[in-house]
Amino acid sequence: MASTLKRIDALKQAAFREDGIDGFLIFNSTNLTYFTGFSGASALLIPKNGESRVYVYGVNYAHAKAELGEFMVELVERGELMTDIAKQTKVFKIGKLLVDALNIESWRALAESLGDEKELAADNSFIRELRKVKDKKEIDLMRKAAELTSEGMRVAYETVAAGMREYEVAAEIEYAMRKQGSSGTAFETIVASGVCSAFPHGGCSDRKIREGDLVVVDVGATYKFYRSDMTRTFVAGKPSEKQKKVYQIVKTAQEKAVEAVKPNVKTKDVDGVARKIIGDAGYGEQFVHNLGHGVGLEVHEPPTLGPDSTDTLEVGNVVTVEPGIYLVSYGGVRIEDTVLVRRNGAEKLTIGSYALGEE
Amino acid sequence: MASTLKRIDALKQAAFREDGIDGFLIFNSTNLTYFTGFSGASALLIPKNGESRVYVYGVNYAHAKAELGEFMVELVERGELMTDIAKQTKVFKIGKLLVDALNIESWRALAESLGDEKELAADNSFIRELRKVKDKKEIDLMRKAAELTSEGMRVAYETVAAGMREYEVAAEIEYAMRKQGSSGTAFETIVASGVCSAFPHGGCSDRKIREGDLVVVDVGATYKFYRSDMTRTFVAGKPSEKQKKVYQIVKTAQEKAVEAVKPNVKTKDVDGVARKIIGDAGYGEQFVHNLGHGVGLEVHEPPTLGPDSTDTLEVGNVVTVEPGIYLVSYGGVRIEDTVLVRRNGAEKLTIGSYALGEE
Repeated sequence: MASTLKRIDALKQAAFREDGIDGFLIFNSTNLTYFTGFSGASALLIPKNGESRVYVYGVNYAHAKAELGEFMVELVERGELMTDIAKQTKVFKIGKLLVDALNIESWRALAESLGDEKELAADNSFIRELRKVKDKKEIDLMRKAAELTSEGMRVAYETVAAGMREYEVAAEIEYAMRKQGSSGTAFETIVASGVCSAFPHGGCSDRKIREGDLVVVDVGATYKFYRSDMTRTFVAGKPSEKQKKVYQIVKTAQEKAVEAVKPNVKTKDVDGVARKIIGDAGYGEQFVHNLGHGVGLEVHEPPTLGPDSTDTLEVGNVVTVEPGIYLVSYGGVRIEDTVLVRRNGAEKLTIGSYALGEE
Repeated sequence: MASTLKRIDALKQAAFREDGIDGFLIFNSTNLTYFTGFSGASALLIPKNGESRVYVYGVNYAHAKAELGEFMVELVERGELMTDIAKQTKVFKIGKLLVDALNIESWRALAESLGDEKELAADNSFIRELRKVKDKKEIDLMRKAAELTSEGMRVAYETVAAGMREYEVAAEIEYAMRKQGSSGTAFETIVASGVCSAFPHGGCSDRKIREGDLVVVDVGATYKFYRSDMTRTFVAGKPSEKQKKVYQIVKTAQEKAVEAVKPNVKTKDVDGVARKIIGDAGYGEQFVHNLGHGVGLEVHEPPTLGPDSTDTLEVGNVVTVEPGIYLVSYGGVRIEDTVLVRRNGAEKLTIGSYALGEE
């Protein structure tokens, strides 16, 4: 709990530095979890002067009272969230209020409740910046999520074989992660075989894996809200020369890109390392996505590692490095790890080196 | 695919009846799945006059081309979605455009791209109405999702026992559903034991179940995007007289409410049936949530079954019926099924009648 109060203090220091802003209102459910450590809140009002308030509906009220000891918890009746908040902004004498994110319809309801005299602005950038740098507690949880993910991938390696259906492989992976304490998957598990492996988000169907298929396995465990993300590519049986060649290019690109991950390096330059290796090998057009993305409470969050990214890496960022080559109507190869940016370079949180197939 | 084109036609007929509206723009990812059958689109533009366009980023483009044979698919470069759409609205001569749902920041970007001459309005009600009534294909998929969920609950019944950790029970449930073809859970599985069972969204922790604990198990499988939702309450060991009494009240409330589910009945009246039984038994204050909610592509969608609901049931609605009694610091009981509204009444899609505990 203490760590979430520190996060609120950090947000106050960043957001209230600007003149005239004296309130921050949070609606996004992931941001609410970040600042309260609880997943059942509906809003959080952070005043410049006064004590923050968490708004909770009846269904979660007893739970919130039990978990949110250090917060003022307000019980909200259905349909009264915006008016309750508006009343409280008067008590706090809030003139200009920043909102993290809101649907256009709710935005209008809020603006109406606040009336004309109050200024309302949408700005998620302060929170994005905070969430990009993980604190010690977050890193511990992500290390655990990555450990569970690595265990899932070990099971994938043992399970992938001709004759298995894609979802049967996913069942074994998820069971292994869950039995060891995962709270669930970080995203829908991908087990994409044969021609489907050429679709980066190939999903997982009831297709039977065939001898010689490329099989892209992309999995993540969640542990106490924190996520992880890992991909390996296997061949069911003996890999062909072409498969080995494409695999080796992606593997080299991934290793060199991981080596390039350091504080103060531009994310587009890390992307460039992998993109150049794949481009020089003649597959530039077949690397159809960014090199990676931040991971944390969400599986995709800032910073982004792509050719157009403007981010610079910092100590405490947790990002994926995941180059791929996708040959439509043939198959695809992707290799991905979740890595932590440390003072001296990247630490791989997901771990596991596997053979492409039977050699 | 044909069924998704029918859905677009139905939307056109509903939305373009009003004067002057000549375009519909869909951004919500679930709505996009509903109208395209594909989960990787970023936007769908439906003109009154002309052929609909699906907007897709590079990472999903090959996949979209393979799956969306009956749609025009537009490849979008990062950062150019709103301007691409704005250009196309000119080609279609669209004057007034409805949008299903959009974040305030994206809304402003869209409005800017469109310029002042075009009218923009947010309205999700047409799609909400369409999605409330499931077509045959949807019902088939929900039946399968419910069958997988019922299998998961059977495993829960066999697994819950003193000494098991909550997440270990969840692991067995999810494995059973997944092995039979589920694409994943419909929501985070709840296995909430002891005092935690008194929190309706009690989650699932590493707590060890103790002899005599109430254990609320709330699970759902997803099958080809469609979800299901089911809750049973067990006791680890021999139930006490108080546990049996509270359980029997909830069971009667659930059965009578399911019997009240019929076309043309107001959802608040169905809620009232259960609420009266629980209130008469002296636990009205401890039934802290609505009776139920619609289920489909999302686990919570219209219609709502609560005291303040304004919906009326129709043939083809799929809703949950889930009364509960939550005694803080003691434990809770909830019983829930997903039911289909048919001409003559409710058909339970989730099935399984279990003893509360050892008798």
